[in-house]
Amino acid sequence: MTVKQQIVRRLQQTKRPVLICHFSPDGDALGAMLGLAHALRRLGKYPDITCQDAVPSAFDYLPGADKVVSEPSGAYDLIVSLDCSDVRRMGTPYHNLSQSQDVQLINIDHHVTNLNFGNLNWVDPTAVATAEMILELTQALGVRLDVDIATCLLTGIVSDTRGFRTANVLPRVMAAATRLMQAGANLVDITTRVFGHRPLAAVRLWAQALQETHMEGRILWSVVTQEMRMQSGCDTNADAGLVSFLIDVNEADIAVVFTEKNSGEIDVSLRTNRGLDVSQVALSLGGGGHPQAAGCTLQVSLQEAMDTVLPTLQATWREQTGQ
Amino acid sequence: MTVKQQIVRRLQQTKRPVLICHFSPDGDALGAMLGLAHALRRLGKYPDITCQDAVPSAFDYLPGADKVVSEPSGAYDLIVSLDCSDVRRMGTPYHNLSQSQDVQLINIDHHVTNLNFGNLNWVDPTAVATAEMILELTQALGVRLDVDIATCLLTGIVSDTRGFRTANVLPRVMAAATRLMQAGANLVDITTRVFGHRPLAAVRLWAQALQETHMEGRILWSVVTQEMRMQSGCDTNADAGLVSFLIDVNEADIAVVFTEKNSGEIDVSLRTNRGLDVSQVALSLGGGGHPQAAGCTLQVSLQEAMDTVLPTLQATWREQTGQ
Repeated sequence: MTVKQQIVRRLQQTKRPVLICHFSPDGDALGAMLGLAHALRRLGKYPDITCQDAVPSAFDYLPGADKVVSEPSGAYDLIVSLDCSDVRRMGTPYHNLSQSQDVQLINIDHHVTNLNFGNLNWVDPTAVATAEMILELTQALGVRLDVDIATCLLTGIVSDTRGFRTANVLPRVMAAATRLMQAGANLVDITTRVFGHRPLAAVRLWAQALQETHMEGRILWSVVTQEMRMQSGCDTNADAGLVSFLIDVNEADIAVVFTEKNSGEIDVSLRTNRGLDVSQVALSLGGGGHPQAAGCTLQVSLQEAMDTVLPTLQATWREQTGQ
Repeated sequence: MTVKQQIVRRLQQTKRPVLICHFSPDGDALGAMLGLAHALRRLGKYPDITCQDAVPSAFDYLPGADKVVSEPSGAYDLIVSLDCSDVRRMGTPYHNLSQSQDVQLINIDHHVTNLNFGNLNWVDPTAVATAEMILELTQALGVRLDVDIATCLLTGIVSDTRGFRTANVLPRVMAAATRLMQAGANLVDITTRVFGHRPLAAVRLWAQALQETHMEGRILWSVVTQEMRMQSGCDTNADAGLVSFLIDVNEADIAVVFTEKNSGEIDVSLRTNRGLDVSQVALSLGGGGHPQAAGCTLQVSLQEAMDTVLPTLQATWREQTGQ
């Protein structure tokens, strides 16, 4: 029996499951979790759905987003982790539960850096999104797609493929998107919500960040400081898309954005093209991700973060390109 | 017999056709023209393929791009116009031919502003791209998709839908993309080439242009001057994508970029969301396009262009929103 089949059986048996996606949730974390929640409801199960951090307002439209809680409280017989590459990424909901309960943990994820921390681990790095794996799971569970499931799962696929732009988008993925649209998911609405949410203040922030963009070798990097966000009137998420913009520059093989958070921590976002892999760099710095899109959070100053990350990336570039 | 059937019959009969797409060719103009050329070759016909302007280097990868000529010279029995909304858009190739020959003209286009200038006019504004119409045509002609046809047609669809982001991308379009990928078209390669070609100098240009961005009512506009291009070391196409970036701002219903060309003419690019239609504004200024993406070129100064276009857009906005 494959691990997927074992998970199907376990989901059919569970009476009181809780689903957990990673903190700082993105479209795939939320889409996969809520999609699975809707599928389980069709089977007469009512999972609690939890995330350490609040659902960003951009994802308000996801059916069930208002049911996500930060503190699960119940006697569960199963925990399902969605889109988390390591146990730490589940954050406080899992931390608190695991102190008081000894419950089986299912780990469903598509990150190549996944540490197989569950009792059952279904990790498929060839899936473009955890939501694509949940689509497979709904079929294995015999659940028919409806507009709620489809909206959640297409959100996950659109988010993690940057709108069908990543190298892993094969015909299979387009066919899946077609099926989800036929089931009622509205692609343009989803795309607009996932990518179109940029306040006017972000234009001012980008103008500043683009002026602070530097090229070293084939690495293009920029910074978003607290001061820049304050001056432009932007909140923390305003640099979304900046690193993707930079990796679209012809001369860049690797793009990096260092963002100074309000807490003072530094978020490091990494992107690559030409087949370079920065997932292991991110993992070694306490983060994770995909070969072409990864990241980590460092408890150091902006300057220290640059001094640590940039030479490491230069070494990675030389190693992988043989130059 | 529908006009499409009449066109199929005419294409089956033609012995010496010439295909013309619009000047300043984009991915859909070239993709539709080259896709049709490959399909006709499968039927044993060898069309000349022409465009007033050279194929931009970003589209070098299109099979047959090296066969596009600017001066057709032959005794043709059929002219096919692709993706041109009016006869003027065919430019010098048609102008010169029409002086010397009286040949039947087929007009295949998806622009809602099309002026039906042909002897046979197949204009379908519900098609996301002229390339989507050519896909339909290949089926009607009984031509099996191959990698050359598929690469050209997927390029057209990706270009005109901004990578499946426009409101007209229905399941039908995703299914078409799936078929083209199954026939061998490489989506990520096409997407990277269509959208990923931005030189490092463009980062500097964007930094300047974003600083010159202004909001008036719900209209967000910016300028790209000759001086800005000179300072940043950018060529004329470096602001591609800027107007799409601006329309993704929450507060904007209409986005405009005024670009000062080397000739001194002003290119005006218009985008809308929330269902607003600027195609008629563009048409009234001598241009054309789609409801949500249109443009024109004005023979005036930058200041005069702004003084003409911005009040017209404000009036259009008030009229269409009833505010």
